[in-house]
Amino acid sequence: MIEAEFIAALRRLPLHPGALGLADDVARLGEHILTTDTLVEGVHFLAGDPPDDVAWKLVATNLSDLAAKGARPEGVLLNYPLGADEWDRAFLAGLAAALAAFDCALLGGDTVSLPAGAPRVLTLTAIGADAMAPARSGAVPGDDLWVTGTIGDAGAGLAIARGAAGPATLLAAYRRPIPRVAEGRLLAPQVHAMMDVSDGLLIDAWRMAAASGCAVTIDLALVPLSADYRAFGGDALAAATAGDDYELLFAAAPDAPIPVPAARVGKFLAGKGLSLTEHGNAVPLPSRLGFEHRA
Amino acid sequence: MIEAEFIAALRRLPLHPGALGLADDVARLGEHILTTDTLVEGVHFLAGDPPDDVAWKLVATNLSDLAAKGARPEGVLLNYPLGADEWDRAFLAGLAAALAAFDCALLGGDTVSLPAGAPRVLTLTAIGADAMAPARSGAVPGDDLWVTGTIGDAGAGLAIARGAAGPATLLAAYRRPIPRVAEGRLLAPQVHAMMDVSDGLLIDAWRMAAASGCAVTIDLALVPLSADYRAFGGDALAAATAGDDYELLFAAAPDAPIPVPAARVGKFLAGKGLSLTEHGNAVPLPSRLGFEHRA
Repeated sequence: MIEAEFIAALRRLPLHPGALGLADDVARLGEHILTTDTLVEGVHFLAGDPPDDVAWKLVATNLSDLAAKGARPEGVLLNYPLGADEWDRAFLAGLAAALAAFDCALLGGDTVSLPAGAPRVLTLTAIGADAMAPARSGAVPGDDLWVTGTIGDAGAGLAIARGAAGPATLLAAYRRPIPRVAEGRLLAPQVHAMMDVSDGLLIDAWRMAAASGCAVTIDLALVPLSADYRAFGGDALAAATAGDDYELLFAAAPDAPIPVPAARVGKFLAGKGLSLTEHGNAVPLPSRLGFEHRA
Repeated sequence: MIEAEFIAALRRLPLHPGALGLADDVARLGEHILTTDTLVEGVHFLAGDPPDDVAWKLVATNLSDLAAKGARPEGVLLNYPLGADEWDRAFLAGLAAALAAFDCALLGGDTVSLPAGAPRVLTLTAIGADAMAPARSGAVPGDDLWVTGTIGDAGAGLAIARGAAGPATLLAAYRRPIPRVAEGRLLAPQVHAMMDVSDGLLIDAWRMAAASGCAVTIDLALVPLSADYRAFGGDALAAATAGDDYELLFAAAPDAPIPVPAARVGKFLAGKGLSLTEHGNAVPLPSRLGFEHRA
């Protein structure tokens, strides 16, 4: 079953009010929000990726969902498949580093054994408190579309992890993303809608527009690219469809103060769908806007 | 790495106060408690098990941890590996049945794809409210040890699932356990310590005694066995080491009112460790008290 079909079926089950119709990356439960992400070896990370980086990324991707809600990370639950000593020890080191870096604590979890040869499947559930951000459905026509940081570095880093030559900075963007927790808390009171860029700038902007019942247009010339990414030979369209950026994408009124470094990349309009320009000239949409099978 | 070693390493990470030192089956977070369990194909369920039963068991095992805390189930998060349509549809049917049966709602989750041929790895995280039960560490010398229901049925059911001849009732005990949610809420105010029997009566009683800093003795002649289990040819020692029962095990003062059907199977004593009797005569401990690799 494909993801969209499965989620449609889940929506016919008894849903908790805090499930928000399964239309968001988080669930709300009293004063807390919950998010969960599973990483699969061979799908979300490479078998040869350093285990400490896998741990870091598992924490970072979950905390990025909390960041998009302007929440303070409170704790995490870990579901871990026990394996080879060396891998487990390196994973624990990465987990310790990530929890320390993001000021987050372990709440609990579960360990299991896998059949011999099975790919690792790792789940982390993160709980945040004091979520201040609006839903991703709050953008209105006339809002500007903004994004923090630079886009495309992680996509280039994936190519480097697979064997391409390139700088360590790009590889680190892929393996050790930094969730924008502090930025999320500063932005939350100023924005109409916010989410993290996990599957690609274009597809995630399209999703925000769809959830908000409006259209969005992005100018590729405004997509922020790092000097390393440009030197690697990447272009804006590749960056905007690569995913794994874990930057914050947000809609804000033209006169809203933007309290963190960010780039204005587009505009929300009446209507629906995504359109692209480059220096103001129309550009056809690519056939693939980002990763569609990941939740 | 073995589970005990991994958990010892986790205890050296920053722990949330609600992690309860990773010594319990649940974590506490404000008014809520959290528990999470992962089921692995080929480890916790058989590849040929009906998918709707796998869904049921995934929900039931998690809610059993909430039951042991006297909590009211509030919602669940599901981490699901998408696969063949038929399996996914049957799983959804079982999930719907379990959520309806236990009056529980879906809060959210994540779907992933697995590499071809990889065993399914399913995680559910359950959140409960209003947990009224004490920790498993509260037993004191002089308390009686009690257990709800009957023990060993699921162990016999596993043998039947693997091909042995036997009644459907025992197979159902293995595939469709009923978490003792209502019993847990009634018992919570009366008990000194409570947990669910997931890995085996002996090992779980030993764990309760160890957490409580006392010894426990169990009389095998008092272990409650169903008529079907006896007819299947099972004995008390096999029952008490089989696991997967999801009954409630609890310590209570001799004069405490016990508001649900239950059997008194032993006694807490000063000292430490587990001892066995049968009709009052000492019985040597078996080499294996239950499943030790499962959390």
